[in-house]
Amino acid sequence: MKNEKAVVVFSGGQDSTTCLFWALEQFSEVLAVTFDYGQRHSQEIDHAKRIAETLGVTLQVLDMGLINQLSANALTRDSIEVEEQKDGPPSTFVPGRNLLFLSFAAIYADAFGARHLVTGVSETDFSGYPDCRDTFIRSLNVTLNLSMDKQFVIHTPLMWLDKAGVWELSDELGAFEFVQTETLTCYHGIPAAGCGTCPSCVLRNQGLQTYLAKKEGAKS
Amino acid sequence: MKNEKAVVVFSGGQDSTTCLFWALEQFSEVLAVTFDYGQRHSQEIDHAKRIAETLGVTLQVLDMGLINQLSANALTRDSIEVEEQKDGPPSTFVPGRNLLFLSFAAIYADAFGARHLVTGVSETDFSGYPDCRDTFIRSLNVTLNLSMDKQFVIHTPLMWLDKAGVWELSDELGAFEFVQTETLTCYHGIPAAGCGTCPSCVLRNQGLQTYLAKKEGAKS
Repeated sequence: MKNEKAVVVFSGGQDSTTCLFWALEQFSEVLAVTFDYGQRHSQEIDHAKRIAETLGVTLQVLDMGLINQLSANALTRDSIEVEEQKDGPPSTFVPGRNLLFLSFAAIYADAFGARHLVTGVSETDFSGYPDCRDTFIRSLNVTLNLSMDKQFVIHTPLMWLDKAGVWELSDELGAFEFVQTETLTCYHGIPAAGCGTCPSCVLRNQGLQTYLAKKEGAKS
Repeated sequence: MKNEKAVVVFSGGQDSTTCLFWALEQFSEVLAVTFDYGQRHSQEIDHAKRIAETLGVTLQVLDMGLINQLSANALTRDSIEVEEQKDGPPSTFVPGRNLLFLSFAAIYADAFGARHLVTGVSETDFSGYPDCRDTFIRSLNVTLNLSMDKQFVIHTPLMWLDKAGVWELSDELGAFEFVQTETLTCYHGIPAAGCGTCPSCVLRNQGLQTYLAKKEGAKS
């Protein structure tokens, strides 16, 4: 796919940054899109911009404030606590979020002459989000193609990886240190290792420890 | 479906107004959503509001300005001529428009506790728009359900009707005169019978004449 263009759905977090490195290896031209929907931490977008600039990738910020008009949720309302719920997805869930992100990314890709879309969704760590599952992505791929009479291909390099696997992939791509120091995953807006206690930090750090132990084991 | 709620994608034109009447007959509670994406004629939204108010239906206007960020087209840019193109869809085409409209409508419906979505797309008069075809709608229905783990049902009462058939349906629903005098379909923003020369007016008026001739023939 060396001579083709791709659009990466990008947030500046561990997963989408790893996907950006993956796409830069796979495609001749890569664009990134990120969505501004009143995130709790506007530094998420600043982080995305900084990473894209460092990697020489054009980043398009798309205004998705409409999401807030439609659903209240913890990612965009400071007053709602970030917490794990017993049933269903965590309270950070924006229903249909990946549906919208990928639909807009496809329209953007089409205008740009790209047919490849890259997203960091993962079924393994999907935390109950239905729009991170492989079956949804495949259905959406068909729907996007029918909606515009095109041949989009949605790539999900992390679909079957757990967090340790994502760290391993970033290492294979020569991006391990970059991802460790430059990305922002923490629900409380603290970059790199983060707050260490929110669900996102716990997942990230457990994955890192698991991968480091595996790497150490392979050496000895 | 008398005890269920529905959300109608509504523009104030002939097709979606007929669908609104249809939905009011089918469901116990009906909401309408319309999209503000910098239409050439802002009176399109005023018309939609007026019709909804007359029919006692709550109308939610959703800001979709982002569409303009993504694609240039004749519906939203005054400088581009409205014309039929020899190949492909007319220059009024916004790629993926129905994909976005129905996705947002579904998220809105979900927040409102509705699972029924109604849209006036028609394969018969689809003018080359891929996102008016039945196969797209069915694929999208599955994708929406997978994206949110829901059981949405997309209703397309006009799918297999030509414009004469849409007039006939509005007559059956007791809405014939209302649709004739209150709706706005014309590309040049002239309500009711419109400018008479743009492709949309020609289609609307030819359909009306065909239906009136059929009705007259049935009488004699």
